[in-house]
Amino acid sequence: MDSVKSQSYEVHINELAKAALNQHVANRTYSKIFLLVDENTKKYCLPVLKEIFDGPVDSILEIQSGEENKHIQTCLQIWEDLSNLDGDRKSLLINLGGGVLTDMGGFVASTFKRGIDFINIPTTLLAMVDASIGGKTGVDLGSLKNQIGVINQPQMVLIFPEFLKTLDPRQIKSGYAEMLKHGLIQDEVYWQDLIKKSNFTDASCIQRSIAIKNEVVLQDPTEQGLRKILNFGHTLGHAIESYCLENHDRKTLLHGEAIAIGMILEGYLSHELRGLSKLSLDEIKKSFLRFFDKVDFTDEDIDSILQLLKYDKKNSHGNVNFVLLQAIGEAVIDIEVPEELFQKAFAYYKE
Amino acid sequence: MDSVKSQSYEVHINELAKAALNQHVANRTYSKIFLLVDENTKKYCLPVLKEIFDGPVDSILEIQSGEENKHIQTCLQIWEDLSNLDGDRKSLLINLGGGVLTDMGGFVASTFKRGIDFINIPTTLLAMVDASIGGKTGVDLGSLKNQIGVINQPQMVLIFPEFLKTLDPRQIKSGYAEMLKHGLIQDEVYWQDLIKKSNFTDASCIQRSIAIKNEVVLQDPTEQGLRKILNFGHTLGHAIESYCLENHDRKTLLHGEAIAIGMILEGYLSHELRGLSKLSLDEIKKSFLRFFDKVDFTDEDIDSILQLLKYDKKNSHGNVNFVLLQAIGEAVIDIEVPEELFQKAFAYYKE
Repeated sequence: MDSVKSQSYEVHINELAKAALNQHVANRTYSKIFLLVDENTKKYCLPVLKEIFDGPVDSILEIQSGEENKHIQTCLQIWEDLSNLDGDRKSLLINLGGGVLTDMGGFVASTFKRGIDFINIPTTLLAMVDASIGGKTGVDLGSLKNQIGVINQPQMVLIFPEFLKTLDPRQIKSGYAEMLKHGLIQDEVYWQDLIKKSNFTDASCIQRSIAIKNEVVLQDPTEQGLRKILNFGHTLGHAIESYCLENHDRKTLLHGEAIAIGMILEGYLSHELRGLSKLSLDEIKKSFLRFFDKVDFTDEDIDSILQLLKYDKKNSHGNVNFVLLQAIGEAVIDIEVPEELFQKAFAYYKE
Repeated sequence: MDSVKSQSYEVHINELAKAALNQHVANRTYSKIFLLVDENTKKYCLPVLKEIFDGPVDSILEIQSGEENKHIQTCLQIWEDLSNLDGDRKSLLINLGGGVLTDMGGFVASTFKRGIDFINIPTTLLAMVDASIGGKTGVDLGSLKNQIGVINQPQMVLIFPEFLKTLDPRQIKSGYAEMLKHGLIQDEVYWQDLIKKSNFTDASCIQRSIAIKNEVVLQDPTEQGLRKILNFGHTLGHAIESYCLENHDRKTLLHGEAIAIGMILEGYLSHELRGLSKLSLDEIKKSFLRFFDKVDFTDEDIDSILQLLKYDKKNSHGNVNFVLLQAIGEAVIDIEVPEELFQKAFAYYKE
């Protein structure tokens, strides 16, 4: 496996990741090394990491897993732990976990004493191919996702597909949704390849997804233009995810499950507004419904979801802009969508 | 009055500041303009700003003044206000206040939706010559100052010495301590000039101080080396400030009052370790005691202050490094100080 070069850090896989981690820590004079885990990664991933990492870990900081804990109070707990354990500017934070943990750990590291080094070791497929790559860090504000954060790159991102063995299939599929997105926005051949797969954790696909995300981020790190294509499916997807998180009667959707719905809906908008063929649209719907069960939405649900849209952080001046597809593998950004199409998109999803 | 050029923003004074503000807002298409005030700046400075600023302000956000409110919960309040008032990525936050407000407003703006534009309009002498310049933003963690934050530059810093007319003399002197520091670390002529003054708000001195700070920050924005000289007096000064804030029986010291003591103490260390002449040391002590009453410290106070030292964010690997003076106008960084000298420094201060 090769390494994928990124702007100010590198993404390494398997043996190269192991070597990079040990070499990095040996070459730097970190005053303290902190490891951030949650109850799951402590149980399932820490033993594996102990086999991989030769260096000392001074303290293990534990937080509770789950999007519902991705808020500033959890950051406060980590900041206080770092401070109480004599963390200083030359400390290193290693984030061992899924996207919630790497987003939050990255934010805490970027703001502790105005920034200390951090390394991401994603343990879910979603975090490997998406969350841990690209430097977006942050937390939710109430039910609004990722409202508070900074863009800041880790020292390195290390990918060990072995961690995926401990993951439940629902989590794996959630990550696969982002990989499918990478095909949809940038690479039709990759999309065609992915929709036929039944092994969702193929290392070469993980690497292809990381490479696509990295290519995009490298060209536009602060999301002035091109990087926005990575938000395909996310504008409606985030609103759906927030809505289900807020409503305790509803089953919570995983991120990938929500954006899978978002991609069908935004696929419909693409067909209506940007000429995505009906054939491609139907292929998108059929493929996602092969991996993800259809979710029931009432009219009231849909109204509430559309209310949440206006809070999405990618909105500006009150308009909701979308990333749409002209064809599979060709995304366009900053498309305004007339409101009446949203209901039609849900109708297409439900039919 | 000229403008002082800084790295990615400009510092403007008086008429130029007025023109720069109005032009900047006219040239940009901000979706919303938010103004952050506290109860004091709302009362005393907002009416003045209304005369200066032609543009619309969509919402005024008010926080409580005072270092004791410089914590993450106040940030949470501002983030929520921005979110509830439909702030988005193209919003602007104008910070109208002292250093606590500009530090906190800068941090909130730097982290809201991963960063929106902000402008600092400092209303205290301390904020004009120090806090609002250089891009350090952040909040305290418990009694530990500025533990959480990022380095990020505002769009511009606007100086209106007129605001100082509403300030009480104790606040003015607090800012003067930082100006005296600028002389001590970089410019003996300026120091000699300042210690003879009785008008502490001379616009040309404000500008000289801003220029000194800016020159230093420009050469080393992220404090890898040179910028550390700005911490002269602050290592012990911060510990003293934190200690007095924590102990409700003690009168709280203003920042400048605390670092004035810090500069006498660190002047003593400079004499012991870096050859600062006894004559200069005595001049430093005499000058600060001319402006600032001597504070009583018991042995227990001093022990507690020295305990707090190890938490100072500029420490690394458990050692406490100091900025010391070789002569007035010549600072050196990263000097380790043997612990036994701390007690002697306090003894010199008290004698």
